Amino acid sequence: MTLIRTFTEGDEITGYYLLKKAEIKQTNAAPPKNYFDFVLADSSGEIPAKLWDVSAADKETYFPMMLVKVQGLVQMYREKPQMKINRIRKATEEDGCKLTDFIKSAPIQPIDLVHIIKQTAAGIQDSECRSVVEFCISKVEERLMHYPAAKAMHHAYYAGLAYHICRMLELGEFVARQRPFLNPDLIKAGIILHDIAKPEEMNAELGIVTDYSLKGKLLGHISLAANWVIEAAIALGIDVSSENIVILQHLVLSHHNLGEWGSPVQPQIPEAIALHYIDTLDAKLQAVEDALDSLPDSEEWTQPLRIIENKPIFRMRK
Amino acid sequence: MTLIRTFTEGDEITGYYLLKKAEIKQTNAAPPKNYFDFVLADSSGEIPAKLWDVSAADKETYFPMMLVKVQGLVQMYREKPQMKINRIRKATEEDGCKLTDFIKSAPIQPIDLVHIIKQTAAGIQDSECRSVVEFCISKVEERLMHYPAAKAMHHAYYAGLAYHICRMLELGEFVARQRPFLNPDLIKAGIILHDIAKPEEMNAELGIVTDYSLKGKLLGHISLAANWVIEAAIALGIDVSSENIVILQHLVLSHHNLGEWGSPVQPQIPEAIALHYIDTLDAKLQAVEDALDSLPDSEEWTQPLRIIENKPIFRMRK
Amino acid sequence: MTLIRTFTEGDEITGYYLLKKAEIKQTNAAPPKNYFDFVLADSSGEIPAKLWDVSAADKETYFPMMLVKVQGLVQMYREKPQMKINRIRKATEEDGCKLTDFIKSAPIQPIDLVHIIKQTAAGIQDSECRSVVEFCISKVEERLMHYPAAKAMHHAYYAGLAYHICRMLELGEFVARQRPFLNPDLIKAGIILHDIAKPEEMNAELGIVTDYSLKGKLLGHISLAANWVIEAAIALGIDVSSENIVILQHLVLSHHNLGEWGSPVQPQIPEAIALHYIDTLDAKLQAVEDALDSLPDSEEWTQPLRIIENKPIFRMRK
Amino acid sequence: MTLIRTFTEGDEITGYYLLKKAEIKQTNAAPPKNYFDFVLADSSGEIPAKLWDVSAADKETYFPMMLVKVQGLVQMYREKPQMKINRIRKATEEDGCKLTDFIKSAPIQPIDLVHIIKQTAAGIQDSECRSVVEFCISKVEERLMHYPAAKAMHHAYYAGLAYHICRMLELGEFVARQRPFLNPDLIKAGIILHDIAKPEEMNAELGIVTDYSLKGKLLGHISLAANWVIEAAIALGIDVSSENIVILQHLVLSHHNLGEWGSPVQPQIPEAIALHYIDTLDAKLQAVEDALDSLPDSEEWTQPLRIIENKPIFRMRK
Amino acid sequence: MTLIRTFTEGDEITGYYLLKKAEIKQTNAAPPKNYFDFVLADSSGEIPAKLWDVSAADKETYFPMMLVKVQGLVQMYREKPQMKINRIRKATEEDGCKLTDFIKSAPIQPIDLVHIIKQTAAGIQDSECRSVVEFCISKVEERLMHYPAAKAMHHAYYAGLAYHICRMLELGEFVARQRPFLNPDLIKAGIILHDIAKPEEMNAELGIVTDYSLKGKLLGHISLAANWVIEAAIALGIDVSSENIVILQHLVLSHHNLGEWGSPVQPQIPEAIALHYIDTLDAKLQAVEDALDSLPDSEEWTQPLRIIENKPIFRMRK
Amino acid sequence: MTLIRTFTEGDEITGYYLLKKAEIKQTNAAPPKNYFDFVLADSSGEIPAKLWDVSAADKETYFPMMLVKVQGLVQMYREKPQMKINRIRKATEEDGCKLTDFIKSAPIQPIDLVHIIKQTAAGIQDSECRSVVEFCISKVEERLMHYPAAKAMHHAYYAGLAYHICRMLELGEFVARQRPFLNPDLIKAGIILHDIAKPEEMNAELGIVTDYSLKGKLLGHISLAANWVIEAAIALGIDVSSENIVILQHLVLSHHNLGEWGSPVQPQIPEAIALHYIDTLDAKLQAVEDALDSLPDSEEWTQPLRIIENKPIFRMRK
Repeated sequence: MTLIRTFTEGDEITGYYLLKKAEIKQTNAAPPKNYFDFVLADSSGEIPAKLWDVSAADKETYFPMMLVKVQGLVQMYREKPQMKINRIRKATEEDGCKLTDFIKSAPIQPIDLVHIIKQTAAGIQDSECRSVVEFCISKVEERLMHYPAAKAMHHAYYAGLAYHICRMLELGEFVARQRPFLNPDLIKAGIILHDIAKPEEMNAELGIVTDYSLKGKLLGHISLAANWVIEAAIALGIDVSSENIVILQHLVLSHHNLGEWGSPVQPQIPEAIALHYIDTLDAKLQAVEDALDSLPDSEEWTQPLRIIENKPIFRMRK
Repeated sequence: MTLIRTFTEGDEITGYYLLKKAEIKQTNAAPPKNYFDFVLADSSGEIPAKLWDVSAADKETYFPMMLVKVQGLVQMYREKPQMKINRIRKATEEDGCKLTDFIKSAPIQPIDLVHIIKQTAAGIQDSECRSVVEFCISKVEERLMHYPAAKAMHHAYYAGLAYHICRMLELGEFVARQRPFLNPDLIKAGIILHDIAKPEEMNAELGIVTDYSLKGKLLGHISLAANWVIEAAIALGIDVSSENIVILQHLVLSHHNLGEWGSPVQPQIPEAIALHYIDTLDAKLQAVEDALDSLPDSEEWTQPLRIIENKPIFRMRK
Repeated sequence: MTLIRTFTEGDEITGYYLLKKAEIKQTNAAPPKNYFDFVLADSSGEIPAKLWDVSAADKETYFPMMLVKVQGLVQMYREKPQMKINRIRKATEEDGCKLTDFIKSAPIQPIDLVHIIKQTAAGIQDSECRSVVEFCISKVEERLMHYPAAKAMHHAYYAGLAYHICRMLELGEFVARQRPFLNPDLIKAGIILHDIAKPEEMNAELGIVTDYSLKGKLLGHISLAANWVIEAAIALGIDVSSENIVILQHLVLSHHNLGEWGSPVQPQIPEAIALHYIDTLDAKLQAVEDALDSLPDSEEWTQPLRIIENKPIFRMRK
Repeated sequence: MTLIRTFTEGDEITGYYLLKKAEIKQTNAAPPKNYFDFVLADSSGEIPAKLWDVSAADKETYFPMMLVKVQGLVQMYREKPQMKINRIRKATEEDGCKLTDFIKSAPIQPIDLVHIIKQTAAGIQDSECRSVVEFCISKVEERLMHYPAAKAMHHAYYAGLAYHICRMLELGEFVARQRPFLNPDLIKAGIILHDIAKPEEMNAELGIVTDYSLKGKLLGHISLAANWVIEAAIALGIDVSSENIVILQHLVLSHHNLGEWGSPVQPQIPEAIALHYIDTLDAKLQAVEDALDSLPDSEEWTQPLRIIENKPIFRMRK
Repeated sequence: MTLIRTFTEGDEITGYYLLKKAEIKQTNAAPPKNYFDFVLADSSGEIPAKLWDVSAADKETYFPMMLVKVQGLVQMYREKPQMKINRIRKATEEDGCKLTDFIKSAPIQPIDLVHIIKQTAAGIQDSECRSVVEFCISKVEERLMHYPAAKAMHHAYYAGLAYHICRMLELGEFVARQRPFLNPDLIKAGIILHDIAKPEEMNAELGIVTDYSLKGKLLGHISLAANWVIEAAIALGIDVSSENIVILQHLVLSHHNLGEWGSPVQPQIPEAIALHYIDTLDAKLQAVEDALDSLPDSEEWTQPLRIIENKPIFRMRK
Repeated sequence: MTLIRTFTEGDEITGYYLLKKAEIKQTNAAPPKNYFDFVLADSSGEIPAKLWDVSAADKETYFPMMLVKVQGLVQMYREKPQMKINRIRKATEEDGCKLTDFIKSAPIQPIDLVHIIKQTAAGIQDSECRSVVEFCISKVEERLMHYPAAKAMHHAYYAGLAYHICRMLELGEFVARQRPFLNPDLIKAGIILHDIAKPEEMNAELGIVTDYSLKGKLLGHISLAANWVIEAAIALGIDVSSENIVILQHLVLSHHNLGEWGSPVQPQIPEAIALHYIDTLDAKLQAVEDALDSLPDSEEWTQPLRIIENKPIFRMRK
């Protein structure tokens, strides 16, 4: 099957794709005619597509998040490729396609990622810290299996959040070994908790954020995670004013570093400084890696990436 | 008794004052001599003072927050007045001075301010809202009797916090009447809760903030108040995810309006917008009023005030 | 008649509306055909509309700011509703429609608003102040009956400027009573003068700003109002260097608070501080109230509002 | 006579200098002793000086802006030179010193500078423009003979303002010749008017700004000059709304270019753009030239200059 | 021939124009039809154009940068004019058109501009300076004959870069005469070198920048010119650490004044200050002049110009 | 010997220290007396010290960077400790003190650090890259043995620069292993080259930066290192326009990430992104670690650190 990221103007394509969007619209003709405005997707990317002749039956057949077999032509429209669909049908069981094959995912199995996170939590020495972390994991464990880390900035795919946490844990372990003045318990706890409330902040399906929740908009994932630390303390009988709880909240609250980036306080313990810069390093490099991964082979430069000062990245010949 | 704000170069002063600071230092003479570096205060202001001849007994006599009777001369030092003390002694019971007469206070009795706040809370219609607000008041009721609202920016005096809340409640009531689309319960709740955790963020004595607490530095009063809302919900059996709790937290979290001013989220309900601008109006005008109050009669311009873009205020002839 | 803000995709609409825009365009067909690109409006909002078949007579019939009767279908175009017009005709006298019923207006009669403003001016104690304020009102009295306060930010409708001034006067009176150190004359004068030159800065018809005047672009309403104070002084025989004139100009010049918001000087008298924050409170809350008023019942969130840090507002269930 | 800018640690100095400051202070000794805290100045710079033994007669003898003959020693105090005065007396008529020899001045005679400005004004072709410019010159003609252009940023010396205007007129004439699309009348008028109200904004004596006037603080020189244009129009019978008046005000109002630099509107005619950048070029280069002029021969780097992004300037060996 | 800047809606045009863009696209009709999406240009401006009926032969006939004769109609599309082409053919030799007549150019012959630059370089007194400047000119001499100074900001036309340098040299000579403390060699060298590497940073044809080169994106013209100074020093046997080389590099590196504008260091010698502000004055005024030149006679205001704080310019009646 | 960071008010100290500063000043007494204004230092910190009785012989004895034996008393002066010296003498050979024992140093021997850097350079696979890196190392090899990485921000001690590079190389190796899409040669080359010209930018002795060099001020270490890459290319016969040279310069030029932080271009290859964030992580964490190391045991909070948003760091009880 041809991957969408390799589509080139003029390609005649036949294959299975995911309908990420499926809207009925009308042309300006007199009388106006219905057409389908689709977005097709696979694990490598997505492309807009048009179906110009729409029957009454078609209207009742095609809906978002459905797998279809299409035959069509790749054309340029406003300097971007789109597909003109000539034939389309629903994929059937006999076609043997699985939805999850058509979405972008972390390169490691979600179950393994969640296992790593839980193992790391279990390895936290301080028992109060450990139980608070485990309490918070338990609130989202199921969603960690598939949630992305963000809407678009970085790790925006299936299990992207768990993958982000795991790569940060690797980096955190290295840094804590390189600098023994850091407390490894706090590095681990900070990394696991920092974005733990994202599944409550955003609504996501199949690794795609559809929108922010009411709580997400009015409170944000930083305050939500801070709430969970308090809930954990009360549930576990830990004094909410104890240094452990204050420090865990501080790690969460300060991890965006600056007020204009959403942190109500700035990092003021060494592990909070480390947490912010480990998060930064992982998010920026992953965004660069993903942008290069989905860059057509014929291109040398990515689109400008908001996460790195809105600059594009150049791919060198190896 | 001569008020400190009326001291003029050359004045010979005799009177009772509060020792706000009392440190022993040494001159550069050879051999060096001890002297006392004081700050004298009364309800109108404060002034540095020096006692050049210090006996061994003196060292054991004078300490901060003690009332003394002094006789001395007002001189200019680096363009600011200071007092050269000629005679000093501890004030005794017979002198009939009370500590609280020597500190700057809100113009309304603390007990009346706290009464207004509690009455207003009791008038909140929604019972969940009301009980959360009352839970939070109960955590600081005693400290509301004397805490200032800030270290220096505004309402920085005895019971300044309660006074700030009460004036805001007056303004909030007016605005809610002028604009019936606003929910008066949320206006009241927002005003009472917005700075409620300041007594936990700062350490203060006699209306003077000495420093910030560890929690104050690592979490800040905004997150502390958000914590209390969660604690209240759990204690009162209210779902922490209910709209009431989310909205109350949103009011608290967003009341500084911008991330760079400490709010992790921006106001997104009408009452949160109202809360921020009511807070702003009261704080700025009070800061201006206080600056003019403590301006010597001979001066036309105050010092630059950080709270109003670092500009000084001009006092017009009436 | 169905209000435009309640239009939903698929609605068949028949009713009277105002033609806010009426342009003839051509389709890309070969040969190209003429069509009318309209914007329909009523007091609740506006919607784009298309008339696909345009006769030679039609071209000479439909012009902006005309009332029409239309019959058409509400469709979605680029995720926004627009109307496909099937039938259209000019409204006649017999239809009994009045233009002013179709535009958004202040909720109080303009004549009453202007009366309040003039009464308040007449109540200014200081005779010089009073006569300068009355001189400036007289320059725009007629336009105060219908001018909006801004192009889009706030009070952008018929008599919006006079309404803004009146609500500020209410708030100003409250604040001056709450804080007797403020001079009520200057509060009143500042509120009436602060935006008084907006009708000279902008061109507006029926409460809609069409564009800025040359003077508006090259000088701005702040400097224009400052000019009027000088003109008034000279006309009334008041020394242009007197404290009254300097203070009135200062109130006008500083009311945007910061240089980047258009004020060449920053507020440096208490009444100027009060003026800026009263203006802010009224403008922000009115913008929020208006945005919620025109929000379709089916929606929970407004569009992002530039005036409140580009954030949307959430409408709670009461 | 040794110029102050050539003073070096250890120098024994005898000469005539201006007392720019003369304050009596007291040492910390017991009993405290009086001493004189002076600032000595000449046309090349200034230096703090101390007179440790002060007689009762001395107190009645030395005052600011008086010429004295001193004999003393240059010492380092907190890494800056100051003079310890051994002998001092008032300069007498026989000494033959003139006050104006001791202050920093423009390198061209004030009378010649003002002559150039008036000649240029007289050469403006448009008679309305010309008479407005001449009206404004007449308000400050006498003060143009000695006023500095600023407190410290640039041209901060005797007749600095007139000198700044004249150098800008030279540059403006060149630019208008190089680019004939510019209107030379407006270039001339803009240059003469742009800072014309500075003598009303600041109080200055002998080329030294002592402070800002009340008008200067509350209105600023930009709005003051805009006022004068209106006054001129009314006095001369020109319509205050005519294009000439609007354009002249626009030149004045926009010449600081940005709101945060004090301009309520931004330049929107070619001559306003030219005016701002001619002003900028002259002010920056003059500030650099003056800083190098007063730099001791032994130094290679000036102090950081606020006017050029707070950078110091390096003096190359020629 | 009708100049494009004078095109008005409804004009029937016949004439020769340059095809600046020529892309084949497809309509949404069923079956879709090919059409040509052109941009026509002449020395006065450019306009989009459509050719709706495209034959197979047409596809092989029209390419960018070709001269054509067209007959068509000017229409409004999305509030901007575009041409509907009725007839089109290639221009032939007999038509007597020259490509260079159809592009915007500096008003002085390129050969004269380059001559001025080389003469000025030859007049630099210091032989090291002179030979470094000549080395750098020799790297781009040919491209100086046609390169623009920028993609869009200013001097964006044929030989715009050489023209910019020459006008700056005129201004620089004036300033150096007005202020003898400036070193004329460094003024000349700085002006010639400051943008000398632009032809290496950008790819341009016929005065139009098509894109940035890889070097241009990864290093920028400032660092490229700094490299050339080092190359010159090595080639000419001048010590790379000598003051001459350091100063020449400093002029180049600092000429954008601020880090956020691309300069890694800020100007710290007088000639570097002069260079930056001479560059600024020339670039801003030229951008204004060019914008007014290409403004249709019927318009009073240009588009907002990014180079002058995104403000439009008003054209006065003379 | 008592470490300076453990000095407490009232301590009687006897021990060997380094004279970091030694200036003769005069008291205000009449006649004034000479005294020595010292700064004493050891590897743990520094403290001001005064010697009040100075003989003629003393003046010729004590100079900066000399080891002395002192006996004195720790006192508080303006809330900071300083020492009053009672006895002092030069340290002699018999005392057995070594200068390098008294200065703060990297925790690894300089010779080992330089060895690591050279070994890493030797391991770069691409021969052009490798030889450019080795060329640049050879320019500063000797100074790498002792240069600090900065004046005050981070790694401001003996061999701090080499230590910074080595820790970054460890981190870089980890990141390159974790993310195989990164080119390890470029990570190594970027890390070694990024600050390689700091010894040319700053003058330093014994790990202490005394000031910036002329080149350092006028060009900066970023442009200096870019120069060296060009010099290396020419010396080694590599085309200065080859991708290798462009990429190496890009790594150096972009490593400060933003223009306002000194980078004329922003990172646009993955390894440049990695380089910037590895540099950031190492510099911030080292600054935090060093601040805690030199924090007196009695303190919980460091001074505000400019490198981490001017926040202080809290030291937790382990």
